[in-house]
Amino acid sequence: MARNENSAALKIIPLGGLHEIGKNTCVFEYEDEIILLDAGLAFPTDGMHGVNIVLPDMNYVRENRHKIKGMIVTHGHEDHIGGIAFHLKQFEIPVIYGPRLAMAMLEGKLEEAGVRDRTELRSVVPRDVVRIGKNFLVEYIRNTHSIADSFTVAIHTPIGIVIHTGDFKFDHTPVDGERFDIQRLAEHGEKGVLCLLSDSTNSELPGFTPSERSVYPNLDRVISQAKGRLFITTFASSVHRINMILELAQKHNRVVSVVGRSMLNLIAHARNLGYIKCPDNLLQPLNAIRNLPPESVLILTTGSQGEPMSAMTRIANKEHQHIKIREGDTVVFSANPIPGNTIAVVNTIDKLMMQGANVVYGRDKGIHVSGHGCQEDQKLMLALTRPKFFVPFHGEHRMLVKHSQTAQSMGVPPENMVILNNGDVIELTQQSIRVIGKVASGLELVDTSGSGMVSAKVLQERQKMAEEGLVTVAAAIGWEGKLLAKPEIHLRGVVTSIEKPLLQKWVQQRIEEILSVRWTEFAESFD
Amino acid sequence: MARNENSAALKIIPLGGLHEIGKNTCVFEYEDEIILLDAGLAFPTDGMHGVNIVLPDMNYVRENRHKIKGMIVTHGHEDHIGGIAFHLKQFEIPVIYGPRLAMAMLEGKLEEAGVRDRTELRSVVPRDVVRIGKNFLVEYIRNTHSIADSFTVAIHTPIGIVIHTGDFKFDHTPVDGERFDIQRLAEHGEKGVLCLLSDSTNSELPGFTPSERSVYPNLDRVISQAKGRLFITTFASSVHRINMILELAQKHNRVVSVVGRSMLNLIAHARNLGYIKCPDNLLQPLNAIRNLPPESVLILTTGSQGEPMSAMTRIANKEHQHIKIREGDTVVFSANPIPGNTIAVVNTIDKLMMQGANVVYGRDKGIHVSGHGCQEDQKLMLALTRPKFFVPFHGEHRMLVKHSQTAQSMGVPPENMVILNNGDVIELTQQSIRVIGKVASGLELVDTSGSGMVSAKVLQERQKMAEEGLVTVAAAIGWEGKLLAKPEIHLRGVVTSIEKPLLQKWVQQRIEEILSVRWTEFAESFD
Ligand SMILES: [Zn+2]
Ligand SMILES: [Zn+2]
Ligand SMILES: [Zn+2]
Ligand SMILES: [Zn+2]
Repeated sequence: MARNENSAALKIIPLGGLHEIGKNTCVFEYEDEIILLDAGLAFPTDGMHGVNIVLPDMNYVRENRHKIKGMIVTHGHEDHIGGIAFHLKQFEIPVIYGPRLAMAMLEGKLEEAGVRDRTELRSVVPRDVVRIGKNFLVEYIRNTHSIADSFTVAIHTPIGIVIHTGDFKFDHTPVDGERFDIQRLAEHGEKGVLCLLSDSTNSELPGFTPSERSVYPNLDRVISQAKGRLFITTFASSVHRINMILELAQKHNRVVSVVGRSMLNLIAHARNLGYIKCPDNLLQPLNAIRNLPPESVLILTTGSQGEPMSAMTRIANKEHQHIKIREGDTVVFSANPIPGNTIAVVNTIDKLMMQGANVVYGRDKGIHVSGHGCQEDQKLMLALTRPKFFVPFHGEHRMLVKHSQTAQSMGVPPENMVILNNGDVIELTQQSIRVIGKVASGLELVDTSGSGMVSAKVLQERQKMAEEGLVTVAAAIGWEGKLLAKPEIHLRGVVTSIEKPLLQKWVQQRIEEILSVRWTEFAESFD
Repeated sequence: MARNENSAALKIIPLGGLHEIGKNTCVFEYEDEIILLDAGLAFPTDGMHGVNIVLPDMNYVRENRHKIKGMIVTHGHEDHIGGIAFHLKQFEIPVIYGPRLAMAMLEGKLEEAGVRDRTELRSVVPRDVVRIGKNFLVEYIRNTHSIADSFTVAIHTPIGIVIHTGDFKFDHTPVDGERFDIQRLAEHGEKGVLCLLSDSTNSELPGFTPSERSVYPNLDRVISQAKGRLFITTFASSVHRINMILELAQKHNRVVSVVGRSMLNLIAHARNLGYIKCPDNLLQPLNAIRNLPPESVLILTTGSQGEPMSAMTRIANKEHQHIKIREGDTVVFSANPIPGNTIAVVNTIDKLMMQGANVVYGRDKGIHVSGHGCQEDQKLMLALTRPKFFVPFHGEHRMLVKHSQTAQSMGVPPENMVILNNGDVIELTQQSIRVIGKVASGLELVDTSGSGMVSAKVLQERQKMAEEGLVTVAAAIGWEGKLLAKPEIHLRGVVTSIEKPLLQKWVQQRIEEILSVRWTEFAESFD
């Protein structure tokens, strides 16, 4: 089909990552080619009984699998790479490009899921430009975020340059010294950016997000004041935070034991690639530190969000095999609870305190900063890239609205931006941006068994049983329409003040009533 | 039993209200007399499937019901009076004293529950002193809180004066002009207070809680900027807030429709008693405002916490019979989400925005303040009353710990305070305070049906069915140990990729296997 290149349209279809934090998954489609940008997962919310993992509805991609030319990964957070192993069971992706740390973590996931052979993983470094299909040229631009090795991407398409920020804040004093490649952004801004898709997570918050480094003196003070054993919990993926904690451990002469599979895993990959640097003997297994004096020990754990199976939660619940809280321990929460986790976190803190720990937590301590930029970071991104069209991304509806208001305040006309729903199909041309349709955009709920999908019907049944319980009646009825034995009644999760024998009598009476009235009719229908 | 009065001990037993916000219920016991102070309810948390209301374990009170001389109510919030109607079904309370507004609300609850005849309700006014039993003289001291007509109580006992703050903040410019009776507190402080039990809700927050009146100019601005219809949602019990909103409605020439049963109920009582003042024609039913111009309408609703059945939630879900959001509506959330409700609230906000509403929310707007004092309020309470012994109350563990640290910073020795768990029995004498034992302190979970109690076993069964679903197999087996028909299999809430006929075949094979091996043995055991 011969067409004037400049008049064709680029379709952008976010399948997840809007209207909720998590499961970021986006389709870019030009003529007969699709590239995917990230494929994350989310965790179940209230009422998703027995659900382990939440994925976006991938029907559109499955139906168009023959168009897929490759995937771009921006960074190694679960909400950006956690879905890939599941999707590869259903369709192949010829090639996945991404930062070294993300690729190392992804490789492990794919091997575990047995789908390592269904794609090709290729690592990129800053300013790498990769061609995917005929229509896409993707340039990796280093950014700063809470995980190391994170990128903004400039996607060169036949109709112009589309910049997807990935997750970012402007951290001018990054812990690893890897600076945001502002120069490349500015250069694109100078030459002309057709469209900017930008991280909206903190668009409700004024000001700049402080540098990760601002946490250092506060953690330093907290650690220096700890008298006994020291526990610190943070996000398993916070490479920079972990780096600082390891540095501070050395400074204060504490050896470090890491507890929690995901954190051990990340640290191994990050050390391999040089993103975490520390002497080998700083890190020790738990049994090696058991007999050290308490003031020489730092235990770094997962569970900063009160996740039910995480190390810190099990410690607080006195369910951890090897670790028990003692009077005089200090426990530091170097993370803020994500909304929805607040109750779990404060319950964990209460339990730790009741066991004698001194717990250091709370926003006023300065021991956590976000990895996402606030309004001023978002303005700086807009100022650097000067996009013609703008799409707020990665956030819930009200965050997208706020972000669009910020962009308006900088002169982007309202008709040059769209507020999206998951599944919306954006048509972007050199002249206009608009939503032209919608693809399936529900959820795919992966069962705790890891194999099956939880359907809406199954969820409803579970919800109903959870709220009311279930009564089962087993009645053996002979061909002559008489009960052969007393009916067996089982109550599970049922609240009643009626005694079992009475209940049994009632059920039996009712069955006999029905049999006497309806049996002939029923038996006839059987012939 | 003849004893030196001064050497006997007062027992204080908090049955609820510690380690969680809600269900405040406290026992004061001296020799053979018990008085109760408040009896609230809490709402179910995650995993309490099919639970409507949470009450403290009342076994201790039920067992000692013959000792009960009466109850003191401090104010009309649900976490202080919501449990009374339930308890009266199980034991009588000779007399309940409380503020007029709380008593009016309580009377309605008791009538509804059919237990109005099981107690006597007596209203009190500031500085009233009531005698309960031989040993207790209770003085009502006006305080300031988010609901009108709220009290601190000074309980005169044979061993000295115990002050229970109730819920409070120091609001020196109260909306209703009813000032905190600081003079009485100071006088007690001068004469000597044996023990202070004080509200710990905001003990983690530095500074003073701002006056309720500080909300006025901000609400004024928000209301004056609203172009179309105006919705405001706040706590149904926030009498002062509602008063201000009604005043501002008059100022801006809007008539008010109140939507939500609990708020209508409170406004009726509060207007009756003069705590809410407004002209009759300001309040109009929904159908009377339907045809008014949008800028003449203010709809005041419940649902500020995203409660599933509340008016605002149903409006956001497009499930409200009479109200639909239109482009240009303004919706104001004059309340902050309580932890645990955050997700429900932000989901509601998102849905309202998607329907075209301009939603005003968030801490930075100055349109909500807490009804509980922060650290400086708590210090002022300690400074006024100068107690010998101190017990932080009404808060979760870490809040109690913080509050005790605040008291320590003011010179209360650590051995003169206790950090309590629900069910702890405090022994207070003129010389000492200590925990001497523990009574049953679990939860009583009232089923959604309103009648039965949900036991731990029932909850476990519900949880298990919610997570995994349930498979039932009905098999009719004859006396000769053969299946009389194919077994019937039903799956509810089960995730499986196995086809039903295959599953049926497997189950049948397994039953036949077991029958062939074990039937004889089983049949013999039956004889
Ligand atoms: Zn992200
Ligand atoms: Zn991220
Ligand atoms: Zn309260
Ligand atoms: Zn209250």
